[in-house]
Amino acid sequence: MKTGYFHEKKYIIKDMEPVRPLVNYIWNEEFLIKLDHNASGFSFAKVGYNTRRTVIADGEGSRLVYLKDRKTGEYFCVNRPFTKEPHDSLHTEVGCGVQTVIGEKYGLRGTFTVTAPMQGYGELWRVEVENTQNAERELSLYVHAMLGIDYTGHCSYNLCRWSDTVGGLFCSHDIYHEGGKKLHDYPHVYFCADQPVNSFATSQTAFKGLYRTYAEPVALEQDSLNNHGGSYDDYPSGALELRLTLAPGEKKTVCFAAGISRNEQEAAQQVKMLLKPGAFEEVLTQRKAKSLAAEQVFQMETGNTYMDTLVNVWLKNQIDLGKTWARVYGKGFRDVMQDVAAFVSFDPKTAREKILLCLSHQFPNGNTIRMFEPFLRYPYMDGAAWIPETVLAYLNESGNLDFLQENCPYFECDETGTVLEHIRRGMKFLTTQLGEHGLCLWGGGDWNDSINAAGLLGKGESVWLTIATVKALKTFVEILGLLGEREEAEMWRGHICRLTNAVNTYGWDGDHYIYGYTDHGEKVGSNENAEGQFYLNPQTWAVLAGIATGEKGSKLMDQVEARLHCPYGYVQCTPSYTKGDPHIGRASYFIPGCVENGSVYNHGVTFKVAADCALGRGADAYRTVCEILPDNPELESSGVEPYAMTNMYLGPENPYSAKFAPCSWITGTAGWMYRCITEYLLGVQSTFNGLRLKPCIPAELDNTKITRQYRGATYHIHICFGKGSMVCDGQAVQGDILPIFPAGTEHCVTVYTN
Amino acid sequence: MKTGYFHEKKYIIKDMEPVRPLVNYIWNEEFLIKLDHNASGFSFAKVGYNTRRTVIADGEGSRLVYLKDRKTGEYFCVNRPFTKEPHDSLHTEVGCGVQTVIGEKYGLRGTFTVTAPMQGYGELWRVEVENTQNAERELSLYVHAMLGIDYTGHCSYNLCRWSDTVGGLFCSHDIYHEGGKKLHDYPHVYFCADQPVNSFATSQTAFKGLYRTYAEPVALEQDSLNNHGGSYDDYPSGALELRLTLAPGEKKTVCFAAGISRNEQEAAQQVKMLLKPGAFEEVLTQRKAKSLAAEQVFQMETGNTYMDTLVNVWLKNQIDLGKTWARVYGKGFRDVMQDVAAFVSFDPKTAREKILLCLSHQFPNGNTIRMFEPFLRYPYMDGAAWIPETVLAYLNESGNLDFLQENCPYFECDETGTVLEHIRRGMKFLTTQLGEHGLCLWGGGDWNDSINAAGLLGKGESVWLTIATVKALKTFVEILGLLGEREEAEMWRGHICRLTNAVNTYGWDGDHYIYGYTDHGEKVGSNENAEGQFYLNPQTWAVLAGIATGEKGSKLMDQVEARLHCPYGYVQCTPSYTKGDPHIGRASYFIPGCVENGSVYNHGVTFKVAADCALGRGADAYRTVCEILPDNPELESSGVEPYAMTNMYLGPENPYSAKFAPCSWITGTAGWMYRCITEYLLGVQSTFNGLRLKPCIPAELDNTKITRQYRGATYHIHICFGKGSMVCDGQAVQGDILPIFPAGTEHCVTVYTN
Repeated sequence: MKTGYFHEKKYIIKDMEPVRPLVNYIWNEEFLIKLDHNASGFSFAKVGYNTRRTVIADGEGSRLVYLKDRKTGEYFCVNRPFTKEPHDSLHTEVGCGVQTVIGEKYGLRGTFTVTAPMQGYGELWRVEVENTQNAERELSLYVHAMLGIDYTGHCSYNLCRWSDTVGGLFCSHDIYHEGGKKLHDYPHVYFCADQPVNSFATSQTAFKGLYRTYAEPVALEQDSLNNHGGSYDDYPSGALELRLTLAPGEKKTVCFAAGISRNEQEAAQQVKMLLKPGAFEEVLTQRKAKSLAAEQVFQMETGNTYMDTLVNVWLKNQIDLGKTWARVYGKGFRDVMQDVAAFVSFDPKTAREKILLCLSHQFPNGNTIRMFEPFLRYPYMDGAAWIPETVLAYLNESGNLDFLQENCPYFECDETGTVLEHIRRGMKFLTTQLGEHGLCLWGGGDWNDSINAAGLLGKGESVWLTIATVKALKTFVEILGLLGEREEAEMWRGHICRLTNAVNTYGWDGDHYIYGYTDHGEKVGSNENAEGQFYLNPQTWAVLAGIATGEKGSKLMDQVEARLHCPYGYVQCTPSYTKGDPHIGRASYFIPGCVENGSVYNHGVTFKVAADCALGRGADAYRTVCEILPDNPELESSGVEPYAMTNMYLGPENPYSAKFAPCSWITGTAGWMYRCITEYLLGVQSTFNGLRLKPCIPAELDNTKITRQYRGATYHIHICFGKGSMVCDGQAVQGDILPIFPAGTEHCVTVYTN
Repeated sequence: MKTGYFHEKKYIIKDMEPVRPLVNYIWNEEFLIKLDHNASGFSFAKVGYNTRRTVIADGEGSRLVYLKDRKTGEYFCVNRPFTKEPHDSLHTEVGCGVQTVIGEKYGLRGTFTVTAPMQGYGELWRVEVENTQNAERELSLYVHAMLGIDYTGHCSYNLCRWSDTVGGLFCSHDIYHEGGKKLHDYPHVYFCADQPVNSFATSQTAFKGLYRTYAEPVALEQDSLNNHGGSYDDYPSGALELRLTLAPGEKKTVCFAAGISRNEQEAAQQVKMLLKPGAFEEVLTQRKAKSLAAEQVFQMETGNTYMDTLVNVWLKNQIDLGKTWARVYGKGFRDVMQDVAAFVSFDPKTAREKILLCLSHQFPNGNTIRMFEPFLRYPYMDGAAWIPETVLAYLNESGNLDFLQENCPYFECDETGTVLEHIRRGMKFLTTQLGEHGLCLWGGGDWNDSINAAGLLGKGESVWLTIATVKALKTFVEILGLLGEREEAEMWRGHICRLTNAVNTYGWDGDHYIYGYTDHGEKVGSNENAEGQFYLNPQTWAVLAGIATGEKGSKLMDQVEARLHCPYGYVQCTPSYTKGDPHIGRASYFIPGCVENGSVYNHGVTFKVAADCALGRGADAYRTVCEILPDNPELESSGVEPYAMTNMYLGPENPYSAKFAPCSWITGTAGWMYRCITEYLLGVQSTFNGLRLKPCIPAELDNTKITRQYRGATYHIHICFGKGSMVCDGQAVQGDILPIFPAGTEHCVTVYTN
């Protein structure tokens, strides 16, 4: 890695001036922090249905720790230099749910750790200060936080002050709610230390100065902070100064808490709890335990240690973010659904809750809202297609067939229905909203958000969505099979047949599947188009849906290899659009190589990996995985964090920034990558009746060792190249499904592949 | 002044670290720049009905000029130090429609001037570089602009590059317009120099570096900029580098243009025009001519040279901003109307257009929208009350009675009506929307925006609005008098009588007028209230409307003196609210001393000055003017620009920031201050039949000399303390109205006052 290295479930960032900021997220179910490698970034709380409230605002000043030698006046910002003058040492340790920046200068070592409790609306900081010199030091420790106070734009509501009740800064923006429509109940933000504070400031102006930078805050040149509250401040923030005297080699620790509250008393109670002795360490212990639990569900040793680290630790962490916060800017129905399908084995109970949360955002007609928290009501059509697979994944992992009979409301109406009925209505929606070719209507779009104008007039049809519907129906038929509902299954098989025929009749372009037909009857993704002639997803999904099998499937994937491959994956379509087409929408207006317009869109690439495996092309699958993983040398300057998947690398047709990965974490790629490696490549698949082992790996992964928990039992699995029956605890096993064992038992399995 | 001094129609800022940034605006009818004293700030263009588009984005990096000595590597940012290390000299010259920052260091003087052409969507920069040393210098001149490109949040549309066609940077964000709803036609922004550019960059990342500050941009340490375009850049900007060789003492000049365009060709044409030789100087000449024209309309010499400077130059400039852009964040109907009433003498033709623009935002029922560009549809009720005075001011200044018969559309409907009918409908609205006390309904509010919940249920009544309606009706009656419409005038006189009775019966609180009754029948602004017992505006307007005259008026103003006065003016209400009241609204939730909750709200204070004059209390009026003018020593640390009025000083009850003036320029105070001084104190009033001279001044203003243009003639006026008839060109004049003279003639007038 160019930026650092992995060490004991942490990623150590050594290059503190990376191509772009390296991001980490820390979250619980109601609170989220986004940090860069300097620990700058925002945090927010979910304070009501569809309502968020900033706790720490974004920006350079969001979280800063300074140390000043009071005798010499020398000072430095522990977690960010801001200047070309380097620290004596500076690095960051990224962990799951925790992050530490360690900076050293002037014989002082500052260790700044940020985390969040497992619940509640607050963040916790710990600052450790060590005197590395041989003389006693008198220090001022300053912390600065961009307290999120001014969220309605009316400075007249701003009041920032010291509160003795809270024992720290207490800043308010307590507004008049127009027409009684209360936005939320949390007008206050607090910022406190667990030790006596010598001075405080409530404003960036007082701390940094209006005309300076954070490299040289004016307050650091003064003896103390100004101890001044503020109202009508355009630039509110919070700063605290503490005095520390350190003997040679001595180390002292101070903890801080920032959070929101409904009133001063509640803030005081929270602070007391958050800053009680040992609270910080307890949170770290809880976070470790949580990570460990997920790690133990699936552990692998494949010989590719980087991939092992990702799968064993980091992808799980990223998937947990996905199942909780989805894309952070909003919770896409399909996004959460897919992330839960990957998450289900770590914690089936939570997975169940998340599925029900999603289904409560399904309209009674079977379609779903595109995104909730906040709502995005654009008429996307694919939501329902993602339901069966995730429900089946839950059933398989949990064995809890009763789930299908649980009741769940529909969105924005009084109706409720069983989970089974939710799926059924979804399938009904997809199989009745058909166009003149018998293909699914495209509406405002499907997986491809950015083909958002092809079907707005109600005529355009999506071949991809039709294929996805076939796949969803086959999964639903499998669920019905578990229930013994043969008659209904038969009815849906009829739809599968009709839709498959339509796909093969009207979706086939001679050598590949097109993406669809616009409202104006024009093909998208056809050889007859000038641009966007060939799309990745219709091909891979045709394979995954069992529409293109055997020889046809292989030929199709050969086309994919020939037309979409680049040294760091597969582009979403080719050639990229250079000319906006209002019959297609956004995708065609994007600069070539961006997102759906010809980037290596990794979510799509993982579908390709799964399709490879479905056709037994394990070597292609593994090579593809390696190409899009951050350690591909081609991607050295992509900017991507080695510990997180990115949604895309800008495609080779991008004029200036090919390979760049602007964004990471918030992508369905993590869940699919996890499933591609564990379920498709290594072939460890939970089924309703037992754990299936069906590896599809290249020679590099021979001799892979896996530990998998399933229904409470632990399976130690060894995958070897060779021929022979699977052996479990010394006994040959017929077929590829292992028996279900009593919870708490452990079993050794050897499976042969070739 | 603490921050600088006035010099030849410029304000020279010497203190370059003022309490808050000192703001200047530069504008034409379709484009606006907001600058601070470092020339940082945004600019935008009006690119369609109710649609704006950023040209330069706000922030530290918005406009920066650096000079680097290529031999020594020493560099500095001409217009802002960013560090504690000072320039050898640094100051700013604020002019009308132009601003210059001059910074000197390392033997180099950089002079950076910003202006905007008189029309069009662009800004112009001129950088003069002077070598003040005795050796030849090889320099790099860098300019950095935060080009406003990413305005929809989708980075995938971003494309920044060098264009040979344009001859400079050409950056685009050419989006897909959902549902064909085009936001505007200007996706491109350009940034060019009038001389060969050696290198360029298109990104803050490339220029400043992601982890640095503008004190130490990474690019300055390199030989050239990186000559790299960008797409999908989170931090687009534009930087240009030019090489200059300067002999000892030599000075070179480079001009730059930034603007927006519909396409590359249009950008090329604009750049050619904006950067043609002499173009910059031509703009300065045009701007000077424009200012001079306004200055010549009214020139005074009162002995208070600061006040003279404000009235002769700066208030006119500020009023011109108001009539064009109102509060900049939006154009309030009443805001533009009031600013035009002050502006009318400078350019009656434009005033006429602005009145018609406003009236086209009047609903057919006579009420008006609160704000346009962008729309604010909250149900404020006072819009119509501001129409008659401005129309009359136009009639008086222009003598163009036909204006009343001009047709003008109503808002968002097919109806049109004459200007007279617009006024009539407004008066009808105000006199029919009455509550149970016969007072005007309060609705969502009146002048006091922040009492925005007292009448939402349709029952609350505003005493102030009733008083304002009486005043408006009296003005309308005056207009009808010009038309000889006696019968209709008589009808309106009946309304005046009824409303006056209602005000005196239900609005009188024993010693003052209350503000009104809430929906729940509670009084606001009464002695019986716990907070907000006494409001300024109902008292001053009762005087201005002729409801409280003579002794009653004087006693009322004595109450104002006793209850609202502080050393820097008069608070809007007392005591400030400390407890939010949902029956009142926003004002009561604001922190004490903020805006309508007990600040010295200067717009209201100017009404008080006018009321003083109406009662002949000239000394009080003048003292009040002096108290709120920025040179009041009490306000030394208020932050206000000496060349602009501020809307408020935080009131004495504010817990932390009393006296602070957070914001300036965008306030009705400028127009009213101008009218208070010229029309009320000095008493130079245009009437339909001639210029009236009716001074009401204290002894300090004895011997005031004024030059006033009116209907094309020029009046040289001398105001003296003493008794006697007014003398014009050696002839005694009966009454206080001077005759109308032929255009082009000049006349000497002496008027006596006591």
